[in-house]
Amino acid sequence: MTTFTNTRTVRIEWGDCDPAGIIFYPRYFEIFDASTAHLFEAVLHITKYEMFGNLEFAGFPLVRTHARFLKPTRFGDDVIVESTIAFGRSSFDVEHKLSLKDDLCAECSEKRVWVIRDADGRLRSHPVPEAVRSRFGV
Amino acid sequence: MTTFTNTRTVRIEWGDCDPAGIIFYPRYFEIFDASTAHLFEAVLHITKYEMFGNLEFAGFPLVRTHARFLKPTRFGDDVIVESTIAFGRSSFDVEHKLSLKDDLCAECSEKRVWVIRDADGRLRSHPVPEAVRSRFGV
Amino acid sequence: MTTFTNTRTVRIEWGDCDPAGIIFYPRYFEIFDASTAHLFEAVLHITKYEMFGNLEFAGFPLVRTHARFLKPTRFGDDVIVESTIAFGRSSFDVEHKLSLKDDLCAECSEKRVWVIRDADGRLRSHPVPEAVRSRFGV
Amino acid sequence: MTTFTNTRTVRIEWGDCDPAGIIFYPRYFEIFDASTAHLFEAVLHITKYEMFGNLEFAGFPLVRTHARFLKPTRFGDDVIVESTIAFGRSSFDVEHKLSLKDDLCAECSEKRVWVIRDADGRLRSHPVPEAVRSRFGV
Repeated sequence: MTTFTNTRTVRIEWGDCDPAGIIFYPRYFEIFDASTAHLFEAVLHITKYEMFGNLEFAGFPLVRTHARFLKPTRFGDDVIVESTIAFGRSSFDVEHKLSLKDDLCAECSEKRVWVIRDADGRLRSHPVPEAVRSRFGV
Repeated sequence: MTTFTNTRTVRIEWGDCDPAGIIFYPRYFEIFDASTAHLFEAVLHITKYEMFGNLEFAGFPLVRTHARFLKPTRFGDDVIVESTIAFGRSSFDVEHKLSLKDDLCAECSEKRVWVIRDADGRLRSHPVPEAVRSRFGV
Repeated sequence: MTTFTNTRTVRIEWGDCDPAGIIFYPRYFEIFDASTAHLFEAVLHITKYEMFGNLEFAGFPLVRTHARFLKPTRFGDDVIVESTIAFGRSSFDVEHKLSLKDDLCAECSEKRVWVIRDADGRLRSHPVPEAVRSRFGV
Repeated sequence: MTTFTNTRTVRIEWGDCDPAGIIFYPRYFEIFDASTAHLFEAVLHITKYEMFGNLEFAGFPLVRTHARFLKPTRFGDDVIVESTIAFGRSSFDVEHKLSLKDDLCAECSEKRVWVIRDADGRLRSHPVPEAVRSRFGV
């Protein structure tokens, strides 16, 4: 299975942190969710917003996630998020590794499904469109 | 002008607080936004979700807000939010007073417009429907 | 191993939801984090804030979580969160089941460690205090 | 009164947006709060985290804010935030202008106080330290 990796830097902000002075972990999931969107943008050269208008696409909801938190991060930290995607037929997996100065701080795996809206407006899963797969070379 | 007041209790959570140990103020705006929705629910007896299906309604976006923060609150605090609405024609004002044990901690005023979606799906302002005004007695 | 279960109701708010109209999943983790705090409060009869002043306690950071999302929820939904704790020596596990009208919508398992601050102010793991264990009957 | 302006670009993410498909306005306040921190970092060349260790500083809590929302923004938008500070003695004002492709979308004014912790650990206002003022040239 071919994979693709995108890397980006994220600043942890004051408002991401809790009274312990470290990141409030649901914020990591916000970072990971955005990182998955950025990964698609890096390959497709359109934003997630544009994906709605340009592709058979109504989202890629998360069905399962697993995360481990190894070292805390805090406001002012510029963390690196390395996100690697592997495609199934109507779903895909993303592995995120979040690190600070070469220390792995958190890692997360996601399984998401590709969904479209059918005629009555309901979301249902759908094979990842060929227009997407070909861009990723899969 | 007739007004209507709704009061509710909100627990401040750990995840609402920042490294100073007190509420991160954007969280107050989340509380106020929900308080406005709860005020409508208290009168209309339907949720904001149901308002979309049952009324000429596509939201009540905020156009202006002013807030003052007098005393901090922290996780574990059960604060009282008293929200008072006054209607204009296509807009309304809400005043929120957030207090802890009789101490006023924050106050906020909002101006919101009533919007609907026109034929091409764009949001535009619209008079507050009579079905809503009559319920509020205005 | 003895377990304890706490149940609470949570309203999903407009601001918890994303452009798909359903809950933005990091918000589930905010709900689960608060649910763990509420579980302790239900047994100890003090808030998490008061735990800092009354117990050998400097938090219970998450070290690992796993979640599955089965059905979406949306603003206006009053969901039930059933949280079950099982204690280890210096850690504990919590299982959260989030349901709407008898439909399981999300489930999440957490492993957390009990931490205290040592003399130099750094967080380190510590056995769950007897004052806590006895309250839970473990 | 001398002022200083800092400009930065912020990506609006999917998770910042609500079921109307546009930014959930409390997120603007998260952006403005971070923008104030970035403004200080641009001048002091240390992060807000480092300010705690290097200055007489325990935060700059907001006491008052006023915001107007002129045009909505949505996920995928890269907005420009221009933040201008003007110092008082123990307080300062920041004006934020958030724009997208030359259209002003939101503007916000903040009044914040400079606080330190006194001997018993309580926050109290304090003149903005000379070490800060001199860097800003005020």
